[in-house]
Amino acid sequence: MPEFPPLKNDVLLRAARGEAVPYTPVWMMRQAGRYLPEYRAAREGQTFFETCRDPDLVAELTVQPLRRFPIDAAIVFSDILVVPQAMGLEVQMLKGKGPFFPEPLAGPRDLERLVRPDVEDSLGYVFEAIRRTRTVLDGAVPLFGFAGAPWTLMAYMIEGGGSKSFDAARAWLYAEPAAAERLLEAITDVTEAYLLGQIRAGAQIVQVFDSWAGLLGPDAYRRFAMPSLRRLAATLAREAPEVPRAVFARGAHFALEELATAGYDVVSLDWTIDPAAARSRTGPDVTLQGNLDPAVLYAAPDTIRERVARMLAGFGRGRHIANLGHGMLPDHDPEHAAVFVEAVHSLSRPYHG
Amino acid sequence: MPEFPPLKNDVLLRAARGEAVPYTPVWMMRQAGRYLPEYRAAREGQTFFETCRDPDLVAELTVQPLRRFPIDAAIVFSDILVVPQAMGLEVQMLKGKGPFFPEPLAGPRDLERLVRPDVEDSLGYVFEAIRRTRTVLDGAVPLFGFAGAPWTLMAYMIEGGGSKSFDAARAWLYAEPAAAERLLEAITDVTEAYLLGQIRAGAQIVQVFDSWAGLLGPDAYRRFAMPSLRRLAATLAREAPEVPRAVFARGAHFALEELATAGYDVVSLDWTIDPAAARSRTGPDVTLQGNLDPAVLYAAPDTIRERVARMLAGFGRGRHIANLGHGMLPDHDPEHAAVFVEAVHSLSRPYHG
Repeated sequence: MPEFPPLKNDVLLRAARGEAVPYTPVWMMRQAGRYLPEYRAAREGQTFFETCRDPDLVAELTVQPLRRFPIDAAIVFSDILVVPQAMGLEVQMLKGKGPFFPEPLAGPRDLERLVRPDVEDSLGYVFEAIRRTRTVLDGAVPLFGFAGAPWTLMAYMIEGGGSKSFDAARAWLYAEPAAAERLLEAITDVTEAYLLGQIRAGAQIVQVFDSWAGLLGPDAYRRFAMPSLRRLAATLAREAPEVPRAVFARGAHFALEELATAGYDVVSLDWTIDPAAARSRTGPDVTLQGNLDPAVLYAAPDTIRERVARMLAGFGRGRHIANLGHGMLPDHDPEHAAVFVEAVHSLSRPYHG
Repeated sequence: MPEFPPLKNDVLLRAARGEAVPYTPVWMMRQAGRYLPEYRAAREGQTFFETCRDPDLVAELTVQPLRRFPIDAAIVFSDILVVPQAMGLEVQMLKGKGPFFPEPLAGPRDLERLVRPDVEDSLGYVFEAIRRTRTVLDGAVPLFGFAGAPWTLMAYMIEGGGSKSFDAARAWLYAEPAAAERLLEAITDVTEAYLLGQIRAGAQIVQVFDSWAGLLGPDAYRRFAMPSLRRLAATLAREAPEVPRAVFARGAHFALEELATAGYDVVSLDWTIDPAAARSRTGPDVTLQGNLDPAVLYAAPDTIRERVARMLAGFGRGRHIANLGHGMLPDHDPEHAAVFVEAVHSLSRPYHG
């Protein structure tokens, strides 16, 4: 383990573990992003994946939001699709369109095209970025590492890009279930090593993003997605028990109970989930994270504060890390993000201590 | 009311009203669609909206699936976006891309661009198509009319096309709530008249499609979307009590209880909802419709039958109309749709009588 400056603000890590905190910690998904002019300036002239492979630039982008907002965590700037890249698939990020795989997996036979990478060789640039970021952070707040959940990565690898319903990927689950399971296992193998590599490099908490969880019904999610999520949590718990684990299965309203007992300290909620209902379904032994509708940040400051107050009341005195229910959007006003962060800090104190 | 041939198969209407039926009736959303070669042949050379405005062609497309499958209902071929067109917005259907509004509503001031149409003048072509279809149907099965729910139409009118999250539309709800409510009311006014016109023309059951319900959280849905849905149901119940009303609020897992008491006879479920859970949340006094994952139709016939059996067991002996949890897809095999329909009919008898 490299030596890094001691952590000054551990409120988020304590909330993740269910320990007492003076206020509700807060961060924002995609807080290092296009809504920040300094982000656009720093990345200018570089493609998305060039940026991901430039450790100094990643460190800079990762800490940018901290210069504006007193958020309680940073998250390393990267993308979940670096894992499919490491497994041998080309991925481009098209401007205004999102990810594009020129040659997605067309059928089970294409599994032969995938490689089992050595993560140090193929994803070492992320580990290096994490080391640099820890140094630049200077212990200000903990640093999140992250990875895509196997089902979500599988969905992209088959569909070849973003989609409203990832029909081709869902078709595999029913028409080629054995191949689907092999693919999910192969992705899980890499993801396990990848997250452990991030932790060795300095990630102090990790989050698994199952962005397309909501495209599966309860049966398919239980059969295909949950086993990989559980295996990832178990491996991390065994190899790095001191590092809290978070999972964000967007749209998986049908799987809250299972997610809460899958080995994660933190279950992140999208904005369609009622906080009080989530708490009663998950029980008291997990930290819930979320879940303000990002669209609320388009509203005036008073409305933002009112919605934050409502959200905090919904989560009540239970274990909570405040966040949006999805990522920041390119046309968000940074001043409104500041209002969100400030409102969480100031309005959450009555729920603690 | 025009005179039409008497109805020979009223199983679906009886299931909608909660009356005894010998088997579970079944139809498929988007059953008149691109997966049928005869659909592609019939529409060749016409744009999507030209097709919608050709009553004889609409009648032909609407009855095509009945020639292949013993489905228990037809649904008039049309699109929810004919209402925004009638309100003065241009809508194009771009090949492979979906709907496109060259000039969407950019802000509250743009509400002035909308007109309150006379539905006979602007949407009479749909009513004429319904009359022709009823004649061609010759009483074989009941004919569904339909409309988009006001929130979903608002989402398109502001966003200008399909989108994963309709951020601009959601922004209105928080930043311009009064304008959002005025827009929703204006759409509801037209939709009310439009559905009543469809019923006068011969629609025997109607369905309201809230395709983007799942983009709103529980609070926003309750405040903005439910009032229009309730108002539509109340108007229809008063003006056409003999015509059953169905609502499909896709993704609205958080609003099932409210939907079940909003004045609809039928609540349609997407495939992320567990049927037994839905029944226990909605109570016995509403017909549930759905909800096989359309991706199951990519699987082999045995798998399709197995998933249908499981779905029927989930719905049990309660009021049920079988359907997919979303529409048919262009690359579905019509033979697999036939397996689905046959499986529902043959496997559902034990749940009745």
